[in-house]
Amino acid sequence: MFNRIAIIGLGLIGGSIGLALHKAKAAQQVTGYDLAKGSSNHARKIGAIDQPYNALADAIEGAELVILATPVGAMRSLLQEVASSIHPGAVVTDVASTKAQVTSWAEEFLPPSVAFVGGHPMTGKELSGVQAADASLFQGRIYCLTPTPRTHSIAITKVSALIEALGARIRFLEPAEHDGQVAGVSHLPFIASIAIMNTVAEGPAWADASMLAAGGFRDISRLAAGNPEMYRDICLTNGESLTRWLNEYIATLSGLRDRIAAHDRNLDETFAKAQQLRLEWQSLHNITD
Amino acid sequence: MFNRIAIIGLGLIGGSIGLALHKAKAAQQVTGYDLAKGSSNHARKIGAIDQPYNALADAIEGAELVILATPVGAMRSLLQEVASSIHPGAVVTDVASTKAQVTSWAEEFLPPSVAFVGGHPMTGKELSGVQAADASLFQGRIYCLTPTPRTHSIAITKVSALIEALGARIRFLEPAEHDGQVAGVSHLPFIASIAIMNTVAEGPAWADASMLAAGGFRDISRLAAGNPEMYRDICLTNGESLTRWLNEYIATLSGLRDRIAAHDRNLDETFAKAQQLRLEWQSLHNITD
Repeated sequence: MFNRIAIIGLGLIGGSIGLALHKAKAAQQVTGYDLAKGSSNHARKIGAIDQPYNALADAIEGAELVILATPVGAMRSLLQEVASSIHPGAVVTDVASTKAQVTSWAEEFLPPSVAFVGGHPMTGKELSGVQAADASLFQGRIYCLTPTPRTHSIAITKVSALIEALGARIRFLEPAEHDGQVAGVSHLPFIASIAIMNTVAEGPAWADASMLAAGGFRDISRLAAGNPEMYRDICLTNGESLTRWLNEYIATLSGLRDRIAAHDRNLDETFAKAQQLRLEWQSLHNITD
Repeated sequence: MFNRIAIIGLGLIGGSIGLALHKAKAAQQVTGYDLAKGSSNHARKIGAIDQPYNALADAIEGAELVILATPVGAMRSLLQEVASSIHPGAVVTDVASTKAQVTSWAEEFLPPSVAFVGGHPMTGKELSGVQAADASLFQGRIYCLTPTPRTHSIAITKVSALIEALGARIRFLEPAEHDGQVAGVSHLPFIASIAIMNTVAEGPAWADASMLAAGGFRDISRLAAGNPEMYRDICLTNGESLTRWLNEYIATLSGLRDRIAAHDRNLDETFAKAQQLRLEWQSLHNITD
């Protein structure tokens, strides 16, 4: 049972953490701070936090655990601001999409008396904002923790307790390992989706072709509707891994293009392999389409 | 009101056409033929056809309209077989995914006394087979018709009446125009999805990374689960358009890769353009995510 937990950034993730903590009765008090006052008030109204604050320093005052629940683009300056007012002995964690850069900022800015461990819950929703917050958002989902050799064990203990209270399953991996893996399974997908949207809509007959676009196009272009600034900040903090995956993807596509141009009658074998991999992934991880 | 309509191929599309025809009371009799006897029997049981036949020639005997509802891979030999037993004055149409190749086969094989016009209903379902047939599958959807200068007007009249009975909206376009447009909005998407599935799963850490794959990966890889033979046959009959779109897509991806590698801080402008295009498409065509 935590004494006081502070949630900085009250969007979908921050709000859902608050709701889940209350549901699990895992903290005596949850405080909150958000640049947008409306979000803080809404978070209190739905019971995600007990007490909103107008100043970051007040929200983290006396908190044994501080959860930074902002997008990765805000993380550098947020860590600098937290560093200037946090008390010794506190534990800090974050939920940003990339971990190597955030971890190195944390180790650079936070005082040595403050323990940090990076985290990344593998969950989400079409909708964003505290209005979409949901106590069950983490239930059964994977929550990555990315300690380094410099991480204090107290941070691992406390954040593991948090993750258990949320109902999620912990996976430990190194920051760079995390970033390489999510570059493939979540960042490459949004670049692929954005690229297909822009390519097809720049075609000469988009006004007509858009009427023929059906379920397949809807699926492949869905990620293109995501937040542009968040995507950019992910690219800026995970460029190396993402570039590597893009090179692999372009090589696979080029190979397929050459075989299609050559009227290769054995393309179905390659397509069947993809089908099998997709069905295996889906069944192994209980994914519902 | 049609006298006798024959549906050749009783899968999702053929079965749904039969159900919709019966619901609209648009034909006195609907006959059916499928290589799989189980499909014919099931189609009769659910009321998609009135009479199944064991021989193609018997099913099309006396039909004023013959609907070829098989995948594009079966179309060449099917048209040859139909040509050998069809009676003068009949109208033939098909529902295959590509139109230039099918139309040229029809014009090559069918006797001049038989009128052909190619068609392509822009609809579908996750599930396939006559078991998934649904009378409302075409309701409000676009149904392409691709006449050529050689198409008899009687074919256009009769197939237009069919499409109205199904509740779909007709769009006329040339076969090559159709193929170019669907190559962008439906064939490029499945190649992109297959390529991402195979690329990511061939990565060194797939066993681990697959656990981190969440909603974004599910969306982008969904099309990879589709039928490999159908995809291959689409590639074989629409290779030129598809190759052109793949070149455009690879160029877009390469441009993004270079900007990501260069830490371009203005990537959000390109991402915002994709977001806007996706939201416009979605709202203009009433697409529900």
